Amino acid sequence: MKLSRPSTQAPDALRDAYRAVRAASLDLAAPLSAEDQCIQSMPDASPTKWHLAHTTWFFETVLLQPHASGYQPFDPRFQYLFNSYYEALGPRHPRPHRGLLTRPSVDEVQAYRAHVDAGVERLLDTIDEAAWAVVAPILSLGLHHEQQHQELLVTDILHALSCNPLLPAYRASASPALRLATVAPAMQWRAQPGGHIEVGHGGDGFAFDNETPRHRVLLRPYAIADRVVSCGDYAQFIADGGYQRPELWLSDGWAAVQAQGWRAPAYWLAPDDPRLVYQPGTTVGWQVFGVHGVRPLAHEAPVAQLSFYEAAAYAEWAGARLPTEFEWEAACADTGMTEMTGHVWQWTRSSYDPYPGFRPLPGVAAEYNGKFMVGQLVLRGGSVATPPGHTRASYRNFFPPAARWQFSGLRLAKDL
Amino acid sequence: MKLSRPSTQAPDALRDAYRAVRAASLDLAAPLSAEDQCIQSMPDASPTKWHLAHTTWFFETVLLQPHASGYQPFDPRFQYLFNSYYEALGPRHPRPHRGLLTRPSVDEVQAYRAHVDAGVERLLDTIDEAAWAVVAPILSLGLHHEQQHQELLVTDILHALSCNPLLPAYRASASPALRLATVAPAMQWRAQPGGHIEVGHGGDGFAFDNETPRHRVLLRPYAIADRVVSCGDYAQFIADGGYQRPELWLSDGWAAVQAQGWRAPAYWLAPDDPRLVYQPGTTVGWQVFGVHGVRPLAHEAPVAQLSFYEAAAYAEWAGARLPTEFEWEAACADTGMTEMTGHVWQWTRSSYDPYPGFRPLPGVAAEYNGKFMVGQLVLRGGSVATPPGHTRASYRNFFPPAARWQFSGLRLAKDL
Amino acid sequence: MKLSRPSTQAPDALRDAYRAVRAASLDLAAPLSAEDQCIQSMPDASPTKWHLAHTTWFFETVLLQPHASGYQPFDPRFQYLFNSYYEALGPRHPRPHRGLLTRPSVDEVQAYRAHVDAGVERLLDTIDEAAWAVVAPILSLGLHHEQQHQELLVTDILHALSCNPLLPAYRASASPALRLATVAPAMQWRAQPGGHIEVGHGGDGFAFDNETPRHRVLLRPYAIADRVVSCGDYAQFIADGGYQRPELWLSDGWAAVQAQGWRAPAYWLAPDDPRLVYQPGTTVGWQVFGVHGVRPLAHEAPVAQLSFYEAAAYAEWAGARLPTEFEWEAACADTGMTEMTGHVWQWTRSSYDPYPGFRPLPGVAAEYNGKFMVGQLVLRGGSVATPPGHTRASYRNFFPPAARWQFSGLRLAKDL
Amino acid sequence: MKLSRPSTQAPDALRDAYRAVRAASLDLAAPLSAEDQCIQSMPDASPTKWHLAHTTWFFETVLLQPHASGYQPFDPRFQYLFNSYYEALGPRHPRPHRGLLTRPSVDEVQAYRAHVDAGVERLLDTIDEAAWAVVAPILSLGLHHEQQHQELLVTDILHALSCNPLLPAYRASASPALRLATVAPAMQWRAQPGGHIEVGHGGDGFAFDNETPRHRVLLRPYAIADRVVSCGDYAQFIADGGYQRPELWLSDGWAAVQAQGWRAPAYWLAPDDPRLVYQPGTTVGWQVFGVHGVRPLAHEAPVAQLSFYEAAAYAEWAGARLPTEFEWEAACADTGMTEMTGHVWQWTRSSYDPYPGFRPLPGVAAEYNGKFMVGQLVLRGGSVATPPGHTRASYRNFFPPAARWQFSGLRLAKDL
Repeated sequence: MKLSRPSTQAPDALRDAYRAVRAASLDLAAPLSAEDQCIQSMPDASPTKWHLAHTTWFFETVLLQPHASGYQPFDPRFQYLFNSYYEALGPRHPRPHRGLLTRPSVDEVQAYRAHVDAGVERLLDTIDEAAWAVVAPILSLGLHHEQQHQELLVTDILHALSCNPLLPAYRASASPALRLATVAPAMQWRAQPGGHIEVGHGGDGFAFDNETPRHRVLLRPYAIADRVVSCGDYAQFIADGGYQRPELWLSDGWAAVQAQGWRAPAYWLAPDDPRLVYQPGTTVGWQVFGVHGVRPLAHEAPVAQLSFYEAAAYAEWAGARLPTEFEWEAACADTGMTEMTGHVWQWTRSSYDPYPGFRPLPGVAAEYNGKFMVGQLVLRGGSVATPPGHTRASYRNFFPPAARWQFSGLRLAKDL
Repeated sequence: MKLSRPSTQAPDALRDAYRAVRAASLDLAAPLSAEDQCIQSMPDASPTKWHLAHTTWFFETVLLQPHASGYQPFDPRFQYLFNSYYEALGPRHPRPHRGLLTRPSVDEVQAYRAHVDAGVERLLDTIDEAAWAVVAPILSLGLHHEQQHQELLVTDILHALSCNPLLPAYRASASPALRLATVAPAMQWRAQPGGHIEVGHGGDGFAFDNETPRHRVLLRPYAIADRVVSCGDYAQFIADGGYQRPELWLSDGWAAVQAQGWRAPAYWLAPDDPRLVYQPGTTVGWQVFGVHGVRPLAHEAPVAQLSFYEAAAYAEWAGARLPTEFEWEAACADTGMTEMTGHVWQWTRSSYDPYPGFRPLPGVAAEYNGKFMVGQLVLRGGSVATPPGHTRASYRNFFPPAARWQFSGLRLAKDL
Repeated sequence: MKLSRPSTQAPDALRDAYRAVRAASLDLAAPLSAEDQCIQSMPDASPTKWHLAHTTWFFETVLLQPHASGYQPFDPRFQYLFNSYYEALGPRHPRPHRGLLTRPSVDEVQAYRAHVDAGVERLLDTIDEAAWAVVAPILSLGLHHEQQHQELLVTDILHALSCNPLLPAYRASASPALRLATVAPAMQWRAQPGGHIEVGHGGDGFAFDNETPRHRVLLRPYAIADRVVSCGDYAQFIADGGYQRPELWLSDGWAAVQAQGWRAPAYWLAPDDPRLVYQPGTTVGWQVFGVHGVRPLAHEAPVAQLSFYEAAAYAEWAGARLPTEFEWEAACADTGMTEMTGHVWQWTRSSYDPYPGFRPLPGVAAEYNGKFMVGQLVLRGGSVATPPGHTRASYRNFFPPAARWQFSGLRLAKDL
Repeated sequence: MKLSRPSTQAPDALRDAYRAVRAASLDLAAPLSAEDQCIQSMPDASPTKWHLAHTTWFFETVLLQPHASGYQPFDPRFQYLFNSYYEALGPRHPRPHRGLLTRPSVDEVQAYRAHVDAGVERLLDTIDEAAWAVVAPILSLGLHHEQQHQELLVTDILHALSCNPLLPAYRASASPALRLATVAPAMQWRAQPGGHIEVGHGGDGFAFDNETPRHRVLLRPYAIADRVVSCGDYAQFIADGGYQRPELWLSDGWAAVQAQGWRAPAYWLAPDDPRLVYQPGTTVGWQVFGVHGVRPLAHEAPVAQLSFYEAAAYAEWAGARLPTEFEWEAACADTGMTEMTGHVWQWTRSSYDPYPGFRPLPGVAAEYNGKFMVGQLVLRGGSVATPPGHTRASYRNFFPPAARWQFSGLRLAKDL
């Protein structure tokens, strides 16, 4: 699937993309019961059903209502229920209470999706060239928006299932879609020359506003690891007392360790955890909860479900540091790098600040990225839960430093 | 249905009662989707599914495991999941997280119920007389326990639905089961002589331990209202500034009014509430959310969903007071009293203290009532949601003074 | 000092009482620095300076302003600063922020006291008989009010000092005023016949409204311990795992044990506490922080700084129970009882409910007691910190069940 | 006072500096009573007395104990009491409880200061050249550390006094030390070329580790305001509904506005505030609490006590933005700039991230700055409360974005 150059794309190509993205969301929800799709396990996470409805609401509100003449909203009350954070679009259901919405039901939400899909198809059937120039970028934004929610749908339901003492699996293990990498070669340092580097999005393909404008930065020479940190690497940090040594931690990180009782990544089960899955003939050790349920810790797999604080403490322990987001982006040009995407998002040592000359998107979409540019850290790369084709070298993901329910890990860097 | 004198009841009579009570629980859940049955809207409330499973767990744990030889538990993990508060039975899933249990599913919980029902039937088929003397009181306790949860099931799901901006109805309005009274004659004071009164449970029918021992108390002469306070009565209190006048309130009650922003009973919608249901030809006014959804306020109906604080403030405003639990109980002998049960539980001016000579039930059931005897107030009577036959004159219901999601109202009293 | 029969007391007698009580407050503050007198260690406690000012405010507001013609308030802003909880007297400085009042200074508060004292003396100098009938009860109430705050002043500053890792002493040890009892004879059960008992205040001496009206209650025969529970007794409860056994605790009490990490009474220091005071030649063991600083645990001394929950758990462990407030009051007539007052307040198994026929005091004083009659437990007796002569057999002290910074202990009772 | 080039400074010069800085701290505390010096008005602020003791503790712990042979600590318990956040130096009194330390008293803390001062003087009297090379940088760091606390002492006591409804003045108004500027000429944009700029500390004078290493950055051309935003400017933002328009705010900022009820800078009193100071012949309007108490709003004075969120919202409203920290630093070379220091710290649009190649100081001082490099924003400049000579162009002050009790304002910038 290619979503680039939306304004010059033919309607048919975008229609195909639309159908594929919309079908992918339903596919992600398919293994889940109506009950699974309804719950919200913490204020930062949302129910599956809410993701399915909100992404639909986005097309209805931003695309169909202003641009599809004669479009009838599915239910006017959904405007209130499924707005996420757009102040310009009026009041909304409070985020921490999304799990209380047993109605509309999963079936009604699917009907809502079908209603909006039909509206979009109708719009694409009849649109003229002038209107297309306006509509195509909105449609394209809506699809990238839905892809972002696809990843959140997976990480949010995993969090919810992780709160159940039975630790049920999201998908049966045969499914290959979200399998973790299984090979972790010895880590190698790759020297990078630094100097003047162009960063940010510059082509004419799709990008979010926060990746722009493309601009030059000045980097010192540095080295960067050719692969991400593995579970085996991280287990050594734990074994070496990493969670008991304040000197390795940022001040806020150490406070979080103590307040939350962190002793390992979010979904690791210690060898004395009563929820461990025992299998005859296996030794007892760390186990990890993931999309396929509880499995023995795979030493070669990338460590995930880490907060920024843990990533930074690990790097300190390893005598290294996290790369800045620009060091990470510059290293994309080095063909010797591996696991840059498709495994875990990688915390960088860069706060999520605006690029010089940054301008938010016009209209409602102005609230998409810019208003979150404080108090968060940039992650680069892409994870096993990121839809294929959704990410790119200039992509800036961001989360608060204590967030640890994402497929978030790290890659080391150091000064030269 | 008659549950009295359990130890001398024939197994067949108790078997009939068992089937009736168990079927009634499923009937209460029938109008609800799987999503509805899963959510928990506040720590004090529990999901429908949890009620269905916990009442089953009670029979499994207290009846079948110790007394039905050869009984195989449905799933040993349910011991942890569905224990409510029995410390003697080991650790348990934390109460505020019951809404996170999307698994086991509604279907699995129904299978669990069927499994335990079969076990109980088998036990009753084969039991001898000696064993029956031990088993019958436990079975009887389990049925009264399930009936208590039937009322909670209704009040808890109503609370959950009340948190949905769509305010969906629990049952279609044709259902007569939970209809509120519609006639409120003018309130009359009934003079009571007081004196030495026997209170508490004394017969050989079933009673909870907290109703015993029966004992004598000394009451002054008093008057008590022949009916409960109606919505129309309560609307006058609101109109007279009841929620703005601290002198009417207990100190903790006034703090709750300010902290929670209370302005009316829990499920009343003010005339300017955006969730009001407009019907052509009707005047705008207070509306009330209930089991049949949102309806115009019925002036004759008993006011419900009141906290103790509100009940006490209303009584103060009315120049009266709440009756003590013994005044209420003594008035049961007065045939001129109406609405004593079947409408709303009635807050009394009695803290939930142990009776003189109180002894908890033996064994696990010791935790049933006694350990909650602090910080709560006694309610007497019974509500539209109380299963028929479940309550009696000596029945002591109890809730913390701020609780207001029950069918809880009040009846006035005064000194003579 | 005798405060009884205020309305018929000559002005001179009350003037003496006034001077004595007012001087006693300053004496209690004398060992404290300006800094000590300013801080507030928790929302439930108040600074020494605030107690000194608030008791003065009470006389100014309830006595002088309405009844002393020509009285000029010391500073009109004090009306707002030093109101405690009287809604009828307008808005007030929030209770949890009393510790932020570094101004007015200790010196200004003492000047405030002198100003009001002069106003009271002037009033007494010139009052006629008719006015005296009105003023005397108010003056008397103000003195009992100030005596209540004298005890709070001591318990609040002890709490504040207990929060300082240095555990400084409130008074040097030579001071005899607050010494704890040092002899604990073996406890004896005293059988009491029960029957019809008159309780509540009935004479014409001073009493608070919550002790009235005097009325008859019906008691079963019971036994009550002839002394309070000692530190040595309580140490056995701890040694027997009392704080680890949920079956001994009320449900809310067990929750408090776990949430607060209680392991002993509030001011006990475990043998491994880094704040222990080591003295050459002494064995290491429990130590207790008190008015004279840290001392080795005195086994004979009454246990204090207990919550109701701990008192109830101890009684359960001892195979006994707490007496009701009426059992305690009835036992006052038994001359074989010891330690009824002057050592510790004794938690009873009675919730703080109004007496039958209770009417609050008229006017502003209506808020004195009645509005707190929910969610609290009655304590009877009187402690080492209670001003001599302040308490009586019908006196009802009350605190929430989790409060444990008072000189609060217990006495056992049991059914016969 | 010049503190630069510490390692080559003669002991006598540093001794003079030491005396001057230490005396300045006492001078700042001089207007305050013992009560004032003891309280802590929020967890983020510390008592005056604590600042006086902690800065002394720093010299004792980092300088005297390791480097002054024979030094006897004043009180070994102070190690625990007055450690701020140095994990390497063992456990410490919890920050939110600093206000509970009524002991040691103000007098004892002054004795502690004198004891340590004597120790330092003795060390300087006897030190040889080799030891001096080690000791001088530590001494110099201690002095800059104390200067930082001097500013915090002022802002913290102001916050404490602002919580008192009487709004007492910190200093009588005659004192010139902390006077605000009184002239605000029309703001002018100053164009800056950008390009390659050297930033960070490069000379051999004193600097904190977070200002290093000096490095080159690449800036676009930009314009920056020649003066800071004034109270008059900011009043227009308020009048234009600035606090009611979510589109002007970062998401977290808008949440703070709603949760905290912000309507103006922290110490502004609205024209209807009951704490306003009325003076005959003046019009009623905004008033501002400051070091001299409550004064009418001075339109020309720099706006202060702003959070980053408010600064960013103001800039958005003004059609501009905040400068980055490097834009601010580059503009220092422009002699047309005014109010760069001595008035308010200026929020920048730069998160507090480490400079490329950043290394914390060795030893205990490693915890000085580096561990706070997440979740904070950089402020540049210096305020009326900053000790003269303490700041410089490369100085990086930092606070969380919601902090608003500092002399923190802003200066506008825009792209060219």
